[in-house]
Amino acid sequence: MEKVTIFDSTLRDGAQAEGVSFSVEDKIKIVKAIDELGIGYVEAGNPGSNPKDLEFFERIKSIELKNTKIAAFGSTRRRGISPSEDGNVQALLGAGVGTVSIFGKSWDFHVTDIINATLQENIEMIYDTILYLKEQGKEVVFDAEHFYDGYKNNAEYALKTLDAAVQAGADCLCLCDTNGGTFPDEIYEITKIVTDKFDVTVGVHAHNDCGFAVANTVMAVKAGARHVQGTMTGFGERCGNTNLSTVIPDLQVKLNYKCIPDENMIKLTHIAREVSEIANLKLNDREPFVGKTAFAHKGGMHVDGVCKNPKSFEHIDPTLVGNERKFLTSEVAGRTTILSMIQKIAPNIEKNSPETTKIIDRLKELEYEGYQFEGAEGGFELVIRKELGKYKPFFELETFKIIGEHPAVTDTQTAAAMIKVCVDGKTEITAAEGEGPVNALDKALRKALEVFYPNLSEVHLTDYKVRVLDSNSATASKVRVLIESSDGNDSWTTVGVSQDIIEASWTALVDSIEYKLIKDIEKKFKQFL
Amino acid sequence: MEKVTIFDSTLRDGAQAEGVSFSVEDKIKIVKAIDELGIGYVEAGNPGSNPKDLEFFERIKSIELKNTKIAAFGSTRRRGISPSEDGNVQALLGAGVGTVSIFGKSWDFHVTDIINATLQENIEMIYDTILYLKEQGKEVVFDAEHFYDGYKNNAEYALKTLDAAVQAGADCLCLCDTNGGTFPDEIYEITKIVTDKFDVTVGVHAHNDCGFAVANTVMAVKAGARHVQGTMTGFGERCGNTNLSTVIPDLQVKLNYKCIPDENMIKLTHIAREVSEIANLKLNDREPFVGKTAFAHKGGMHVDGVCKNPKSFEHIDPTLVGNERKFLTSEVAGRTTILSMIQKIAPNIEKNSPETTKIIDRLKELEYEGYQFEGAEGGFELVIRKELGKYKPFFELETFKIIGEHPAVTDTQTAAAMIKVCVDGKTEITAAEGEGPVNALDKALRKALEVFYPNLSEVHLTDYKVRVLDSNSATASKVRVLIESSDGNDSWTTVGVSQDIIEASWTALVDSIEYKLIKDIEKKFKQFL
Repeated sequence: MEKVTIFDSTLRDGAQAEGVSFSVEDKIKIVKAIDELGIGYVEAGNPGSNPKDLEFFERIKSIELKNTKIAAFGSTRRRGISPSEDGNVQALLGAGVGTVSIFGKSWDFHVTDIINATLQENIEMIYDTILYLKEQGKEVVFDAEHFYDGYKNNAEYALKTLDAAVQAGADCLCLCDTNGGTFPDEIYEITKIVTDKFDVTVGVHAHNDCGFAVANTVMAVKAGARHVQGTMTGFGERCGNTNLSTVIPDLQVKLNYKCIPDENMIKLTHIAREVSEIANLKLNDREPFVGKTAFAHKGGMHVDGVCKNPKSFEHIDPTLVGNERKFLTSEVAGRTTILSMIQKIAPNIEKNSPETTKIIDRLKELEYEGYQFEGAEGGFELVIRKELGKYKPFFELETFKIIGEHPAVTDTQTAAAMIKVCVDGKTEITAAEGEGPVNALDKALRKALEVFYPNLSEVHLTDYKVRVLDSNSATASKVRVLIESSDGNDSWTTVGVSQDIIEASWTALVDSIEYKLIKDIEKKFKQFL
Repeated sequence: MEKVTIFDSTLRDGAQAEGVSFSVEDKIKIVKAIDELGIGYVEAGNPGSNPKDLEFFERIKSIELKNTKIAAFGSTRRRGISPSEDGNVQALLGAGVGTVSIFGKSWDFHVTDIINATLQENIEMIYDTILYLKEQGKEVVFDAEHFYDGYKNNAEYALKTLDAAVQAGADCLCLCDTNGGTFPDEIYEITKIVTDKFDVTVGVHAHNDCGFAVANTVMAVKAGARHVQGTMTGFGERCGNTNLSTVIPDLQVKLNYKCIPDENMIKLTHIAREVSEIANLKLNDREPFVGKTAFAHKGGMHVDGVCKNPKSFEHIDPTLVGNERKFLTSEVAGRTTILSMIQKIAPNIEKNSPETTKIIDRLKELEYEGYQFEGAEGGFELVIRKELGKYKPFFELETFKIIGEHPAVTDTQTAAAMIKVCVDGKTEITAAEGEGPVNALDKALRKALEVFYPNLSEVHLTDYKVRVLDSNSATASKVRVLIESSDGNDSWTTVGVSQDIIEASWTALVDSIEYKLIKDIEKKFKQFL
């Protein structure tokens, strides 16, 4: 297995994506996740450009990493001064890490028209900076910015910039398709010329402006590149960077290159999702390998095929990358999918039982109202139970009232809720304040029910999502609320739909509580059921 | 310019994506959008599989299309019966369209292990079905399902299935990478073999399971394919299909093939977004060519480079595809971006003016609180005005109270709001009921203010979005509310952040109203300003 070094730029190029802004704490969490996956390098920012990055480099020194080396990122020295006089180059040394990546210009047009230097000056800027950093004992990656555009415009000059880097002792020449406009066959040809010509490691840094970031990276590896830059889930400037969560399994699972320790591949899905969470960017459901629907089958024929033999509609086994097969519970899904959910609760029910038809009909009705149980299996389980009669309500709501006012009574508690519930003939009335009406209602409901069901105190909500269904009706739009709950052992998701966000949240809250109570009964009385 | 026929499967393979469910009305809207873009074919569904599709084929007959032909989709006949006895084949004829696409098996494993036919039977199923449809005067596209996997497993047999289709008179052989596991260089080689061997048009249908759908499609075209299947924004089974909004400009703008009329290319962004809206799937902001951030620059050096010469960080001119350049208003954005916004309001302010620094500082504070003005330029304009003193409040809020109760007083009006505002010393107190608390408050506020500002009656909200910022605090999470408003001429977006969704909505509502009032004053008194 030939090795390909992965160089993660989530904290640097990834931070240039719209909507991304990492705290120092976020950055440390991401480094730990990347280390756990076993990626070789993290490019962690530019210590010269902002104080947050500087703080990061201080703090990361005390954290022990198993697999990952930290790199600092900066540019070649400015014109007319030596590297030892250049504040940014000095800041790179100040980061106190063993590896630095230095970007320099390889496209003659950028040299003359953007940084207003002569072609010879630029060569010297590259050479001097790298030589200086090598003298300081650093491992140096030379990021040849716009290399492919540069090569197409002036091949001789582009190669000269690489040559300067090599002469100065660069450890790796990373060829960048900075604008993302190069095609996979061009990438292959140009990279091949470079790998044939130079003896040092060649790398590739691609952008997705034409939809080719991953393909271009793989084609560069096929042309001999052995260092791959990208970001964990592909976010970055404009259309983003090479998505490492796609390219790592492409290279390792499909082509047998070695990017991360084999035993870590099953962590890929988890870590890609974790990094998305920290960045607070929704991971695309359709993301190859790690997305929620990457191995989800909806068409009836596909579902049937996969049941006969998974390879009929799956190019790899989803568990290899820590993901899972899903049959989508939807009106177009075949009965097979829905049946597998039903049989969890009532193993005797068959594909053609009348109960199956009844549940599918109910599902269609609910989908029509705006419900969606893809990803909310907890909620769907309750629908099945209700249709099968394997359900009775755990409490009755007599009434609730919520009041919000401005100016607020206290600083953060902007709303109050009063609730009256009834369990087995006993009523409980209580109230709670909260940060907004939904929070107040949530707190009041739990407070009332814990009197009867103390095990509810284990439950906490781990996620609360609101999706506006028909944005065109503006504030009277229908909303779908998804609530994810956990009791420390399991987690489950429930759903509510209404034009009133409070009503929708209420439905999802009640389902979440009932799901937990049923689960506990099943566990406790397993032998009787 | 060599022609490549585009065959859009948004309504068929696209409908197999998680979360997608088209009404007949939706389907008709999408066909009209695709026709407006000038795409050659729309594959509109399977008339044999569901009544919704049947209704669609009826209704579409009366709609005149300028560019697009409708195709019906189905499979080869079942084993053991003739095409004229096969209900699904008959349903295809019943659709009453001139073009049909027929999928059949090209992977020997699928023939023997999934549909349990003999290899010879499958060849006959392909041959008979196509021959029959040709006899009925149809144009026939043969979708060779799993062709590439089939070729790799048993090249001779895979080619035999194509040969059967050609012998029967198929007009196009569309090679499918159904499982999405094939690499771009393999696609090129295998497609080349097919285009060299057969004289009919060859097509390609790719999936994105390895992140290669677009690259594979382009490589197939380079190998001679001249028919391209995909879905408008790439949604489809599992990881989705070839994204036509990427591959069309890749082929036409970058490689000079002819896919759609040249003059329609500027409609691409609009139509991709429209189709996403109809499908109710959020278009990925980073989507190549058509995404919101496809030409958005955040890094300071990138912004400065683009100001000097756009080609420094843009591979094409964004207006070619109807998109636009954006400089993101963010704490890491260079001053250039923010300055361009400030100068809209105060043209005399310079990059280094103290006002610029003050506004940037305020922006950082607000971003820290969870505000984000990327995409909410209306809200950002008000921030600038407030900092520059070019603002005074149009009203004062004395108090509001909202009440929600369960059971609700009326069927849909689940909440009521009371509001008291003051304009120039005059107070107005009023109330409104609504579908949920935000809607009630929105209605009450407008009702109160229209007394003083009748032009507010032109404003209506066109979009309302809620984003949970820190999902981990569940129902006490901070939310960001985005409100898009329109007065028929312009539209603008404003933003509010709070732990209380009502408070966050309030901020965005107030900003929306003030933005409108300022805009009208500017228009009316332009000469005095």
